[in-house]
Order: sequence, then C-alpha cells, then structure tokens
Amino acid sequence: MKLFFSPLACSLATRIALYEAGVEAEFVEVDPKTKKTSDGTDYRTIHPLGLVPALEIDDGVLLTENAAILQWVAARFPEAELAPRDPLGRARLQQWLCYIGTELHKALFVPLLDATAPKDAKEYALAKADSRLRWLASQLEGREFLLDRFSIADAYLYTVLNWAMVTPVTLEAHPAITAFQRRMRERPSVARAFGEERTLYAKEIARHAAASVWRATSSILGSPKP
Amino acid sequence: MKLFFSPLACSLATRIALYEAGVEAEFVEVDPKTKKTSDGTDYRTIHPLGLVPALEIDDGVLLTENAAILQWVAARFPEAELAPRDPLGRARLQQWLCYIGTELHKALFVPLLDATAPKDAKEYALAKADSRLRWLASQLEGREFLLDRFSIADAYLYTVLNWAMVTPVTLEAHPAITAFQRRMRERPSVARAFGEERTLYAKEIARHAAASVWRATSSILGSPKP
Repeated sequence: MKLFFSPLACSLATRIALYEAGVEAEFVEVDPKTKKTSDGTDYRTIHPLGLVPALEIDDGVLLTENAAILQWVAARFPEAELAPRDPLGRARLQQWLCYIGTELHKALFVPLLDATAPKDAKEYALAKADSRLRWLASQLEGREFLLDRFSIADAYLYTVLNWAMVTPVTLEAHPAITAFQRRMRERPSVARAFGEERTLYAKEIARHAAASVWRATSSILGSPKP
Repeated sequence: MKLFFSPLACSLATRIALYEAGVEAEFVEVDPKTKKTSDGTDYRTIHPLGLVPALEIDDGVLLTENAAILQWVAARFPEAELAPRDPLGRARLQQWLCYIGTELHKALFVPLLDATAPKDAKEYALAKADSRLRWLASQLEGREFLLDRFSIADAYLYTVLNWAMVTPVTLEAHPAITAFQRRMRERPSVARAFGEERTLYAKEIARHAAASVWRATSSILGSPKP
C-alpha cells in the first residue's frame, strides 16, 4: 500500500488512519507546486488531476478522493474500528465526511489557501466561515468526537481545521472546536502524523524558498537578453 | 420517509434514487430563497444550515448531506442495486460521489449558480472547469455509466451536469459527457424526476417574479418615507 501525500495536505487524514490501524505503508511525497514525487516522477502521470491523496492499494489499482480512501482504510482494517458498521452510524459518518469535504475543505479553505485565488474569491469563501463553523461547534458541544468514538471523520476534521492557522479563519470564537483540536493533538496517532508532516512541510517551504532565491540569482547573473 | 428538496437542486439525485427503488416517499418542497417549506414552515428550524437535501428517515431522525443520503437510500433498498457491494466497487462509488460533490458541485457550480457571488469568485471557479470536465470525460469514454451499472453516482452526476445550462460551463466540447446526459434523460426514473421538478422549478421562478413585482409595486404605491 502506497500513499501519495503532500505535507499537511488533506492526505494527513489517511496517514492518521493508517497509524491508528497500525498498518505499514509506503509514503510517497508529492511537491504541491512542482507536482514531482520525491524520486522526480511527474505525479500527473500517476493521477492526471495532480491531487493528493491517492492510495495505491494493489499493483495498478489507485484510489483517489479523500473520503473514498479514508473509508477504504476503515473497511480494510475493521479491527481498528475507524468507522461505525451499523446503517445509521455509517450514514452519520458519511454525513460528516461530506460536510467536511464540501463545506469546509472545498468551499471555505481551498480558495483561502490558494495563493492564486483572487481577493473576491477569498472573501466569498470567508463569508461562509461563520455559519459553517457555528454548525460544527454546535454539533461538537459536549462530545469528544464527531461520532460516538474516534473515526476517520475526526482525522479529516482535525486535518482541515489545522489550515485555519495560515488563513484569516479564526476558530477561537468556537471553544468546542478548539477543545476538539487540543484533544486530537494529544492522540498518539495524530501527534506522530502531525509531527512528521510538520517537519516535511518545513523542508518543503525551505526548498521553495531556495528555488526562488536560485531563480532570482540566475535572472540577475544569467546571460543578458540579446 | 420524507425528502426535503428544492426543484432541480442536488436533491433531485435522491428523488431519482427513490424512483429507481420504487419507494413511496413524501416530498417537501423548500423554497431556496425564502427557506420556507410548502406549508410555510421555516426550513431552518428543521435543518439550521437551510441546505437541501435532508431526509427524515424516522420520526426525529434527519439525515443531511447528499452523498450520505444517497448511500443510505442505496443501502436501505439493496434490491434496487444502486451501489456496488464489493469493497473495491464501493470505494469507486465513494470516489465518484466525492469527486462530483467537491470538484464539480461545490468548487465549480456553487459560485456560478449563486447570484450573490462576486465576478472574480465565478471566474476563479470557472477556471477549473476544463480540467475537471476533461477528467470526467476521459473516465466516461466508452462507458454507459460511471461504474459497471447504473448507480447513485450517475443520479448525482446527471443532476449536477444539468446546471451547466444556466451557467457559462459548456459541455459540448466533451461528447462523452453529453452522450451520458442523453442516455440518462431516457432512463424512466430520471425522465420522471426531471419532468416533475422542471414543472416545480418553473412555478418557483414565476412565484419569485410575482413577489418581485409585488415588492416593486408596494415600494411605488406604499407610504412615502417620513
């Protein structure tokens, strides 16, 4: 099993799920800017859309889309109890995966995290933050997890909420959400996954900064235009 | 079972699924502008986010989020075979539900359909149309359905693609997509559901137009400002 990921991207949720399940997997880093994997392969030859996560579950069998991958991991390793098995519990899990994926991840955070998104697109996204976070907070009130016990939905929610720190989204107005974040950070699988990806993220930032200095230097020192 | 829907909104997919399963259900129309149900109830007292679909599966048990509701219907009526049951088939289904829900529905169509979205937010959304539709077309090439047979993913995709006609998204460059639409339209469950909701949609538009004339008239004939 091979997980294609980018540090602190939504693929972090699958790493958490795999650690929860105590499963060995190969992790292949994809640079979100260059779309190159760590061995220099163009990731778009693996997944044409260039999006992470992707999970190679067998030779030539590639799963994409976060909610599908998370549910596949939960189903493949049932002893980790990462997803409810009763029909209503399963529906509630899918409800959360869908809410996090559409309302928070895609509608709110993607435009805010995208350096190329125009200001108005960011403001349009940000205008939905309050209602979406208030609803989330109301559902987390008095609960430890989104469902009755830890599930892949918590791993996904934790991953997405992490992004708030580099956007104008403020979570502090919602104590039920910040308390959830604190609880998650103390969970060994989460602490390990986040710690490892934070280190890789710092390296990614340094690599891009070095590349940008290199480009600037070359443009100054390079051969003058004819 | 009670489906809260708005005409031609993404709740259409659940209506199609219910017709496929041959299931009796109550359909409660929610006006997307006023958020009132047909009997005058404020829908936000039922679902605080005011989003459709919502499915009341039992007294006081309300499911929300399209992908969750569709999968619940498929699981509840297995004889309709609306979802694969093998692990890989299930993962592929969830992959499509997630792709349609995030990349097409939320990222592409929501800003384009939203009259209040700023121009730049619409353009930012539209810029992703080509890659997202090309990928979809490549996957539909030579296939009748997204999976091996009709599934809830087809119902959802058909519903979302319908919106193209009132946005600048052009599907004609992708014959595999327009052929999929034609095949779906011929399917009895789809033809019936679409026909019914198109009629309700026309009534909704007429209602809003009448309300707007009424407001304009009142503002002209009403008492002058002090």
